Amino acid sequence: LKLAIVGFGYIGRSYVRALNRKLDLLRSIDDGFKVVGVADIEGYLYNADGLDLGRLSVITKITEYRGEKLYGGSAIELLEKGEIDLLVEATPTNVKDGEPGLTHIVKALTRGIHVVTSNKGPLVVAFRRLMELAKAKGVKLKYEATVAGAIPIFSLVEKCLRGDKIKRIYGILNGTTNYILTRMHFEGVSFQQALKEAQERGIAERDPTLDVEGVDAACKVVILANSLMGKDLKLNDVNVTGITKITPEAITLAKRAGYAIKLIASIDDRRTVAPKLVPLNHPLCVHGTLNAVRFEMDLAGELTLIGRGAGEETVSAMLNDTIDVLT
Amino acid sequence: LKLAIVGFGYIGRSYVRALNRKLDLLRSIDDGFKVVGVADIEGYLYNADGLDLGRLSVITKITEYRGEKLYGGSAIELLEKGEIDLLVEATPTNVKDGEPGLTHIVKALTRGIHVVTSNKGPLVVAFRRLMELAKAKGVKLKYEATVAGAIPIFSLVEKCLRGDKIKRIYGILNGTTNYILTRMHFEGVSFQQALKEAQERGIAERDPTLDVEGVDAACKVVILANSLMGKDLKLNDVNVTGITKITPEAITLAKRAGYAIKLIASIDDRRTVAPKLVPLNHPLCVHGTLNAVRFEMDLAGELTLIGRGAGEETVSAMLNDTIDVLT
Repeated sequence: LKLAIVGFGYIGRSYVRALNRKLDLLRSIDDGFKVVGVADIEGYLYNADGLDLGRLSVITKITEYRGEKLYGGSAIELLEKGEIDLLVEATPTNVKDGEPGLTHIVKALTRGIHVVTSNKGPLVVAFRRLMELAKAKGVKLKYEATVAGAIPIFSLVEKCLRGDKIKRIYGILNGTTNYILTRMHFEGVSFQQALKEAQERGIAERDPTLDVEGVDAACKVVILANSLMGKDLKLNDVNVTGITKITPEAITLAKRAGYAIKLIASIDDRRTVAPKLVPLNHPLCVHGTLNAVRFEMDLAGELTLIGRGAGEETVSAMLNDTIDVLT
Repeated sequence: LKLAIVGFGYIGRSYVRALNRKLDLLRSIDDGFKVVGVADIEGYLYNADGLDLGRLSVITKITEYRGEKLYGGSAIELLEKGEIDLLVEATPTNVKDGEPGLTHIVKALTRGIHVVTSNKGPLVVAFRRLMELAKAKGVKLKYEATVAGAIPIFSLVEKCLRGDKIKRIYGILNGTTNYILTRMHFEGVSFQQALKEAQERGIAERDPTLDVEGVDAACKVVILANSLMGKDLKLNDVNVTGITKITPEAITLAKRAGYAIKLIASIDDRRTVAPKLVPLNHPLCVHGTLNAVRFEMDLAGELTLIGRGAGEETVSAMLNDTIDVLT
């Protein structure tokens, strides 16, 4: 299998390091496994015989990769160039129009190229269309990393709970807001103070709007509902309230009564993202940047998964998706 | 696929009800799906054309099933009788010698019959031998229900975390002791009082030794270590301490310091079951009869699963194993 990676930011680079670390495993599944291309805003690297994963693992920009021509064209040119079997799409999420990821994914699927993506944008704006295109072309479109990072939600439901029917999904799907609410709960600080601290620690972005207004969590609601509950939702089908108006006083009152305020995404007949009171002893009441997802199933009852929602651990999901395409 | 069920106690009956409820799904996967035999201590029912799941679903003993001959022979006779493709073994766990489940499973595998079991006993005494026998005969031996009930641990690792390596597994694997410790923690009662209450509510057995001495959790350690970490352990390879000596005073001290005492099973280089202090805000700190399992993986980091460890929800695991055999 010949793989091309588009997007060489934190996730793209972490993914390359994971591939390098797990190369023996990957080659044991497919002895022809190789990374033939990597694209980023500077252009792209391409070698049909495979790029060197060891060298790719230690650079921070593709311009630093020595001994290979850097092409000036776009990722689309890379996808049109060679015999690529799998696109790994790791460009940043754009919830407005899904670009540039959407164009990359459509291009790949149209050419019969499998896709593994960590990019929520294309799925939020065009989930059904992309899945149908993948089906029509007989290729896979995998997106385990897009919701709750390292927690294997989609493959769990698809592969481990095949006899169950999902009645409801709810949980904490945004680590940044969970971090802020955790600091407010345990340290008594204001929203603004907690946000500032999160920004200083690299947990919140400079423009934190998408996280703190609940839009990021709503994107995950869209993907979960479309993927696991057969819906065809867009972002404006989710009722969203963020955490910006939560006061230290509200947190204190909740705490005294044995609750924490958490930003809860919920999917059943209604789709909402809103601050909710969660009992401190409840399995969903996890703190820091953790994510937690709870399924209500008709046979298994309530099943909760807790793990890392972002960061380097996310490549576990991308690697498993990659192995899924390989086998 | 022709299925035979051995053991018609609480789990066997719950499984039959789940099959009946999910018959359309099962038939959509395999239109020849039918239950041809059910055995219990009274004998067995057998009909090569299939027994009626609706009628099986509403009886509590196989002697109550009308319109079919009740054979006086054993489950072994049933397994030798007809063309059976899958044995569902749901007899009670016996940790001493694994019987009668061990003989049933060996018989089935030897005859090239797939096995789905909810019975820990045979796996605790002969895991490696049974897996090798299944492999030699080209059939599946599935046991998702044996550890942490409705939490799909084994299939999660096998199917959803294929790129990850497990560094450690630990968690709460016994619901009875978790219930007792929870009552002691929140109500301040003694071990004996909490145990009595658990017995009255049907959460603890009349002879609670295996649960409260940690043996049941140790059985699960054996199965987890053998299945997921390539070991070949027996029960006496696990270092076990139960909860019978835990005093209300110890619980109170822990609570004041922000901890709960939980019976924690742990598998890395060492295998232990022992009461441990768990921070109240830790994802593993779940209460009541819940089970919780935490994996430390090399890529995904820490992943925690929380769900029902026993009871009717367990049939979710058995049904998924059944679907796995069907496909």
